[in-house]
Amino acid sequence: MRKAVVLLSGGLDSATVLALAIREGYACHALSIDYGQRHKVELEAAKRVARALGALEQKTVSIDLAVFGGSALTDTNIAVPTSGVQKGGIPVTYVPARNTIMLALALGWAEVLQADDVFFGANAVDYSGYPDCRPEYVRAFERMANLATKAAVEGRRFTLHTPIIDLSKAEIIALGVKLGVDYGLTVSCYQADREGRACGRCDACRLRREGFQAANLPDLTRYAGRG
Amino acid sequence: MRKAVVLLSGGLDSATVLALAIREGYACHALSIDYGQRHKVELEAAKRVARALGALEQKTVSIDLAVFGGSALTDTNIAVPTSGVQKGGIPVTYVPARNTIMLALALGWAEVLQADDVFFGANAVDYSGYPDCRPEYVRAFERMANLATKAAVEGRRFTLHTPIIDLSKAEIIALGVKLGVDYGLTVSCYQADREGRACGRCDACRLRREGFQAANLPDLTRYAGRG
Repeated sequence: MRKAVVLLSGGLDSATVLALAIREGYACHALSIDYGQRHKVELEAAKRVARALGALEQKTVSIDLAVFGGSALTDTNIAVPTSGVQKGGIPVTYVPARNTIMLALALGWAEVLQADDVFFGANAVDYSGYPDCRPEYVRAFERMANLATKAAVEGRRFTLHTPIIDLSKAEIIALGVKLGVDYGLTVSCYQADREGRACGRCDACRLRREGFQAANLPDLTRYAGRG
Repeated sequence: MRKAVVLLSGGLDSATVLALAIREGYACHALSIDYGQRHKVELEAAKRVARALGALEQKTVSIDLAVFGGSALTDTNIAVPTSGVQKGGIPVTYVPARNTIMLALALGWAEVLQADDVFFGANAVDYSGYPDCRPEYVRAFERMANLATKAAVEGRRFTLHTPIIDLSKAEIIALGVKLGVDYGLTVSCYQADREGRACGRCDACRLRREGFQAANLPDLTRYAGRG
């Protein structure tokens, strides 16, 4: 059985990717990163999702990106926007180099496990404002990784899989439902409360809700202040 | 004044690189990484070196790579080799994806600071066994970084400087002495004791001592068990 490291945030996209990797027959090691995000409750969701979908194990690595500041997701002095998804430009919820840091950690674990595959739920459609979700970035990371490791020097080839990069949120949801993902276990909201209930107003909430509507599927998200 | 992030381990190579970046006129923000290394005392050396050479500030980010295991530097069940530098192959002191992880963190801080330059003390001569010290790796990381960030999307160009990559240890030492680096403040040993005294037998100690000998310069390293 081929091993893979799957980056698992606890949100909707990465849960779908984990289900896909398992369906493709990989023995999956799920990696979650505590990077000082305000929505730390998503890490609890990651543990639940890993268990429910059948990952072999799940690890959480802590790294305090709040030391650097610069993002609404790690700096409580910068508010999470709630007035609607911005058209054009990069939102303040962007965390500098976050995906590069998370992929570097996944690469490190993959090397220790002697896994040649990493799965990553980047999506270029809904989040086109994030530079490190673009296909050209993904290919450049893969190329760098193939020069970075002992495995590469020994002639093994590393592959970075981004199976949902071109799917709309509705397509991701439809796919996940078909694969048996229980989206009620996932948390997308950037400012979910301690119980994992969503605000309903941040970009992540809006994109998620619109996804369920467009997929014509019931949205099991729990919202704060609605019982 | 142009800002730069300088990766500073507390060892000899990165101290020399910091001195070079300051001499080139950069306002230097020194970044040290506590990755669960046994020779944590090098982080104290990093603070001393940053102060002595005139970095604007120094930050230490913690990330527990020991969670993954797989290296003599993070796993106390794997002994640090002390019988001489291995010819060919990758030594067990190699930490999977360590440089990729440290460079990703430097990239993140650079983006927050709006710095377009990162300095990194990779050296391809003495440590030819480490895949992530090779020039082709460095160029691939730089290329990836130029697709990863908000700064890149806005048209700014990121440069990864590796000024000592082609120098021998003796050349690095001769350069640093000329720039006024006090190598007595640095710690290279993979298993230095709590006071920062070196074992004298690990690869890092051997390469360092041979470097001072070849440069015909006094070695101020403090060794354990020799007063």
